[in-house]
Amino acid sequence: MAATRAYLDYNASAPLIAEARAAMVAALDAANPSSVHTEGRAARRLIEDARRDVARLVNARPEHVVFTSGATEAASTLLTPDWQMGRGAVGMSHLYVSEADHPCVLGGGRFPAAQVTRIGVDENGIADLDALTRALAADDKVDGLPLVAIHAANNETGVIQPVDRIAEIVKAAGGVLVIDAVQAAGRISIDMSGPYADYLILSSHKIGGPKGVGAIVAQSDLMMPKPLINGGGQEKGHRAGTENLPGIAGFGAAAQAALAGLDDMEAIMRHRDAIEAIVRELVPDAEIFGAAAPRLANTTFFAIPGIKAETAQIAFDLAGVALSAGSACSSGKVGPSHVLKAMGHGDSLGALRVSIGRATGAAEIEAFRAALADTVARRADKERAA
Amino acid sequence: MAATRAYLDYNASAPLIAEARAAMVAALDAANPSSVHTEGRAARRLIEDARRDVARLVNARPEHVVFTSGATEAASTLLTPDWQMGRGAVGMSHLYVSEADHPCVLGGGRFPAAQVTRIGVDENGIADLDALTRALAADDKVDGLPLVAIHAANNETGVIQPVDRIAEIVKAAGGVLVIDAVQAAGRISIDMSGPYADYLILSSHKIGGPKGVGAIVAQSDLMMPKPLINGGGQEKGHRAGTENLPGIAGFGAAAQAALAGLDDMEAIMRHRDAIEAIVRELVPDAEIFGAAAPRLANTTFFAIPGIKAETAQIAFDLAGVALSAGSACSSGKVGPSHVLKAMGHGDSLGALRVSIGRATGAAEIEAFRAALADTVARRADKERAA
Repeated sequence: MAATRAYLDYNASAPLIAEARAAMVAALDAANPSSVHTEGRAARRLIEDARRDVARLVNARPEHVVFTSGATEAASTLLTPDWQMGRGAVGMSHLYVSEADHPCVLGGGRFPAAQVTRIGVDENGIADLDALTRALAADDKVDGLPLVAIHAANNETGVIQPVDRIAEIVKAAGGVLVIDAVQAAGRISIDMSGPYADYLILSSHKIGGPKGVGAIVAQSDLMMPKPLINGGGQEKGHRAGTENLPGIAGFGAAAQAALAGLDDMEAIMRHRDAIEAIVRELVPDAEIFGAAAPRLANTTFFAIPGIKAETAQIAFDLAGVALSAGSACSSGKVGPSHVLKAMGHGDSLGALRVSIGRATGAAEIEAFRAALADTVARRADKERAA
Repeated sequence: MAATRAYLDYNASAPLIAEARAAMVAALDAANPSSVHTEGRAARRLIEDARRDVARLVNARPEHVVFTSGATEAASTLLTPDWQMGRGAVGMSHLYVSEADHPCVLGGGRFPAAQVTRIGVDENGIADLDALTRALAADDKVDGLPLVAIHAANNETGVIQPVDRIAEIVKAAGGVLVIDAVQAAGRISIDMSGPYADYLILSSHKIGGPKGVGAIVAQSDLMMPKPLINGGGQEKGHRAGTENLPGIAGFGAAAQAALAGLDDMEAIMRHRDAIEAIVRELVPDAEIFGAAAPRLANTTFFAIPGIKAETAQIAFDLAGVALSAGSACSSGKVGPSHVLKAMGHGDSLGALRVSIGRATGAAEIEAFRAALADTVARRADKERAA
């Protein structure tokens, strides 16, 4: 991209950080990690080093990390009625997700639609914990344990769910908790050694690593989902297929940097707050979604009254600013955000998401101000013409 | 690896070629291809260019290529009783595989074990076509169409199946044919525009591209398997998850080079034949498996009587020669080759696989000769001592 562009879409994909790039390039010539010769064993070490780094990011044990091709595969793997404990089968009776989850969780993975219940969220996007408690109490557990899957932080609003309280509720109900930590990892501290999730979903490219790699992190691997992908015995049988070695090496390096960089979040929040101050200054009637709730430091999601978000997004793009109208996950499909709808804003014109990172600085913020000023001026012109 | 090592294990993983490396490095900074901004659209173009190159390798249409995280995921996706034609459901009654298939095919993917039948192979590893014909004739088709999955070329022996005849048999029986072309692609010409497979499985890292990416190539996408991985609408809904962009870009470049390099196969065959001449010279009692059948130009699979293949493999490794004892697919697991067993050699001491590529030259062949001579001398010492 031209150096003059401002990339403010980290929640869609964070730019590859230098450490991850170096680790990938170093791993490009690696052999098949399942080969027993010298070259194969060297490749195996790269994977195990990355596994240790990814585990460290969320304070888990390396042997409880299973690498996947991304968060979506991790979700499709975890969200299944069919689990196993050693060679024994364990069932999950029913899946509970939140209305504001990512499509890969909302779709229910391998659960039949009739076995998936969606829990509502409040106007900030926080899951309705009473509704969750009631739903779990009503679960008859005839076919197994209730499985709850919910995001730690929302990809559109950045709103952070009260995972600790959710974990208490799920534990009290004898359920199993999967936390989609794709947007939260590397932005807030996650500790799998205490009472948090039973299973985490991680994505490399949201933390500055490469696309095409993610992980399942388990608090314990005593009970694991029936594998989604079968073949050779890679990943201790939990996920077959020759490992994406450069991807995994890059993920490891990104995880290491993300852990070290958690302290930078205050600086990132100041930049995000500066962007929100610009929004409030130039668009006094703007609505910032989820602002009343705890949010990730790097995200703001706002609506400009009278302007369709998709239209504004194109104007920003033409002005050299990359941001998004909602999430990027549906192959360029444009439609109302299910997250906004779940929060009670289904009739809005959509919203713009600005999501930033460590590399975002004054130049990007100024580019944002200029593009927003243009957009607002055009809105004023239009209103005068009407 | 030290320049003095000889890597003769291309069927486990072919070294990344320069063109693929350059394409990957160029794609490392790409954005999310589902983003609609300039950065996202540039990323999208990289994927569509690669799709065109992969399609061209097997003379298919780009829109019939679905990228996956590898061949194993492709197999798990295709081998399912649940297919769809538009929004309608189509069933596959039963799966027929060959005894010499790769574990990711042999395992039957998403078929219950009771719905998978294994067809035997002859002493060269060629599928028993009469048995296949009989099995398909006996299929009651109550639950749908019979699905046949078989490799085009074997990963251990290099033996090439008569895919044209298999396709005739499957077509006459009203079945659907999946060809695992992982080892064949880029080594023999594959033409999806005529009567060949209905669906192909491809792997990038076997043709000089990166690990962690593969593809399903369909002759037509009218009927497709129910997706294995669900979420965002990527790959036209056939495979969700943010695309492995550097991997896909590298795969495209490798496919382009593999197509151009099909003419080099004669030179590669001369090198392979030179290696076999050395085997026959130094080990007159060696057995070369599948030598009587059509084979890939780059592969030889042989047994040294009196020496366990795993032991010989370690000796070769110490002598600086990377080759394998059977396939690499099972995470370093050492055990009898199911391919040899299917060919009637279950009681052997295993076999050594040498698989080469374009970069293999006189230095590697001489290293192989020296290591084999050492191994044979040690066998003679042992025999004298006994």
